[in-house]
Amino acid sequence: MKQKKFLLPESEIPTAWLNIQAIMPNKPLPFLHPATKQPLKSQDLYPIFCKACSDQELNQKDVWIPIPEKVREEYASYRCTPLVRAYELEKALGTPAHIYFKNESVSPAGSHKLNSALAQAYYAHEEGITNLTTETGAGQWGGALSYATKKFGIDCAVYMVKVSYEQKPYRRSIMQTFGAAITPSPSMSTRAGKDILTKNPNDKGSLGCAISEAIELAVTTPGCKYALGSVLNHVCLHQTVIGLEAEKQMALAGEYPDIVIGCFGGGSNFSGISFPFMRHNILEGKKTRFIAAEPASCPKLTKGKFLYDFGDEAGKTPLLPMFTLGHDFKPSSIHAGGLRYHGAGVILSQLMKDGFMEAVDIDQLESFESGVLFARSEGIIPAPESCHAIAATIREALKCKETGEAKTILFNLSGHGFVDMSAYDSYFSGEMQNYSVTDEDLVRFRESTEALNR
Amino acid sequence: MKQKKFLLPESEIPTAWLNIQAIMPNKPLPFLHPATKQPLKSQDLYPIFCKACSDQELNQKDVWIPIPEKVREEYASYRCTPLVRAYELEKALGTPAHIYFKNESVSPAGSHKLNSALAQAYYAHEEGITNLTTETGAGQWGGALSYATKKFGIDCAVYMVKVSYEQKPYRRSIMQTFGAAITPSPSMSTRAGKDILTKNPNDKGSLGCAISEAIELAVTTPGCKYALGSVLNHVCLHQTVIGLEAEKQMALAGEYPDIVIGCFGGGSNFSGISFPFMRHNILEGKKTRFIAAEPASCPKLTKGKFLYDFGDEAGKTPLLPMFTLGHDFKPSSIHAGGLRYHGAGVILSQLMKDGFMEAVDIDQLESFESGVLFARSEGIIPAPESCHAIAATIREALKCKETGEAKTILFNLSGHGFVDMSAYDSYFSGEMQNYSVTDEDLVRFRESTEALNR
Repeated sequence: MKQKKFLLPESEIPTAWLNIQAIMPNKPLPFLHPATKQPLKSQDLYPIFCKACSDQELNQKDVWIPIPEKVREEYASYRCTPLVRAYELEKALGTPAHIYFKNESVSPAGSHKLNSALAQAYYAHEEGITNLTTETGAGQWGGALSYATKKFGIDCAVYMVKVSYEQKPYRRSIMQTFGAAITPSPSMSTRAGKDILTKNPNDKGSLGCAISEAIELAVTTPGCKYALGSVLNHVCLHQTVIGLEAEKQMALAGEYPDIVIGCFGGGSNFSGISFPFMRHNILEGKKTRFIAAEPASCPKLTKGKFLYDFGDEAGKTPLLPMFTLGHDFKPSSIHAGGLRYHGAGVILSQLMKDGFMEAVDIDQLESFESGVLFARSEGIIPAPESCHAIAATIREALKCKETGEAKTILFNLSGHGFVDMSAYDSYFSGEMQNYSVTDEDLVRFRESTEALNR
Repeated sequence: MKQKKFLLPESEIPTAWLNIQAIMPNKPLPFLHPATKQPLKSQDLYPIFCKACSDQELNQKDVWIPIPEKVREEYASYRCTPLVRAYELEKALGTPAHIYFKNESVSPAGSHKLNSALAQAYYAHEEGITNLTTETGAGQWGGALSYATKKFGIDCAVYMVKVSYEQKPYRRSIMQTFGAAITPSPSMSTRAGKDILTKNPNDKGSLGCAISEAIELAVTTPGCKYALGSVLNHVCLHQTVIGLEAEKQMALAGEYPDIVIGCFGGGSNFSGISFPFMRHNILEGKKTRFIAAEPASCPKLTKGKFLYDFGDEAGKTPLLPMFTLGHDFKPSSIHAGGLRYHGAGVILSQLMKDGFMEAVDIDQLESFESGVLFARSEGIIPAPESCHAIAATIREALKCKETGEAKTILFNLSGHGFVDMSAYDSYFSGEMQNYSVTDEDLVRFRESTEALNR
């Protein structure tokens, strides 16, 4: 019997995260204060984030950052996650490529998001913080933080984009089951929310607005900090457990990836699967390709520009150097809610600029077609976000079919789709459509961001 | 770090199922032909089920039945499933008990049901069968068979109880994603369905009716057979991979269970976790207790009677010797749809009669209260069915807290609840209620079944 799954015992959970900043040939540009445009120090982030995360955010020195033992203990409830050889998908495609995927869908919250949520909740607890706030769009991050805070005895307040709150009651119930308090955003509980609702009482919210509300609550409430689930350096850092495990597991399979693929929203799961392998490109000149799969409707890497931009819609965050569509960008309402963010993480943007990674954009219909083929082959219904990584994998595997090359492709299955079945319904009913961004839109949405950079 | 998960590589997937019939001190009574009341031979089942399953159904000779290699290969996509020590639940309860659970929720279909679906689809394929029909209530079995038939290139037609079809669109979409054709039952595609709809065009269906429709389609269509997901002996047989793995994993943990617990609908997951341990009670006089956790609203083991009864509502199946509430029994619409069956499997009924197992009934509110505590402790949102096993486990663990005994309790986590979040919504909103069965109901529903036994 051919071995499908490559497992590691929990004793093999990594003991340190890989801080790729420390080995990057060109370090990321500094974060800037939005008013003074002066570079920020980690202390400047303390009012928003807990101290440990703020320090990790700007740490460009230490290659390895030890994972606290209590975080490893919590990881043990689902890590090490399986590495799986997708024999059935290979067969369905008739490709000579060897396709592997890292299955992050087995986590309690159903996605990779928990890898950082547990770390952030742990540090908050250690620093005596009693409340964490956050925002959630699709609900994956909110579910993860709800669970993680519960584990460390911290209260959690989640601002959920109102349209998702109404359309995705199951995601809401998952957070509730884990014990979090959920507020639809925009809400009357913050100045940011009130301003928006005063202009338009029927506003259905956006991720940018939910971020503004969550940050406002954090900075105005004693004992309360804010937690973010993607984009930031410390989040990407925490996600490197994915690739560190995968590296050992690929070795068990006797292979090393020619191509590594992850879907791309702000960059957290992509960083997780990529960085540990990318370090060998940086340090030893390996030639692995790293492909970020983003939605055609939110193409920050393929059609965005490298600029300083805000992380949120209201412009409350520091200015971040990143590939961005502009913080005013209004993404279409695709089902992959986790990929609807206007910018790419700071580290990732620098790596993209320096040619260490590439990106492709995937139409919504192609993503679901790929997801259904994967489900029927491998038996796991992927999250709409993960469908993008699968689509990019299939493209590469079909190229191998043409050339006859038996390349080794590794992708990250960031989450399962059990709570996204309405998206599959929409696909099967024929109602689903593609959304693309016009050149005019790109220019228009970028306008105020370009102004910031003048 | 204390070890939480006990994993086995896929090479340890059992090579044979345990056929407990062969070692039972009192063999199950024969199935009877409904008209002649003569004992059935396996050939009499061939028109309905595939031959291999029919033979397994009545096999009282062979203790071990080899698992075909192709089935093991399919098992490998999710087996061996993890055995987990529930340290956090123990801590939350303050119990000295050692609680373990076997996590069957990691299967593609989200529950243990796939263990039998793959076997049934394999045998059907080997026998040249091109179509399988089945019924589904909650949708767990339908999802499993949809996936399994896809793997073996067989078409699958699922009759889904109409009320579930309307209330559980996500379950329907899962089956659709795996490529099955779903018909709400009662339908106009069968005589059984037409009869019911003629009487009442608004009939919302029942599991008994859906079974009748699926069987009718199977016996009237060339190349088509019927597949059932619980109750029957061959289904319980296929599920023994659960307990056989758990036995090895408990040994890895250095323990042997004092108590084994499973939720109970028709008996499939309960058999799976129990039989491998129960064989040591039968053969070596071990004293492990086996507790079936059934819903208070459908208490076939605690309040049913051991009688010959039909497996379906329309009375089309053979007569089966079982603990039953009567085939006319109308269960309340609890959320644990998989436990709403009127009878217990034939083997299980005999084992119950002979004192090898016991049963408890659990109210709906207690089941969800237990499920939420488990989710917050262990990070897995359990299926409403599995919540019953958790509730029974908690009862036993709290008894240990009183007596100070450090008993080892093993329960089967039969499935996850990601597709059942509306049930959790109902619990959190305070709208959920308990349903109990009155003595009058018990007598009334049993009437026609008692008549069959005169």
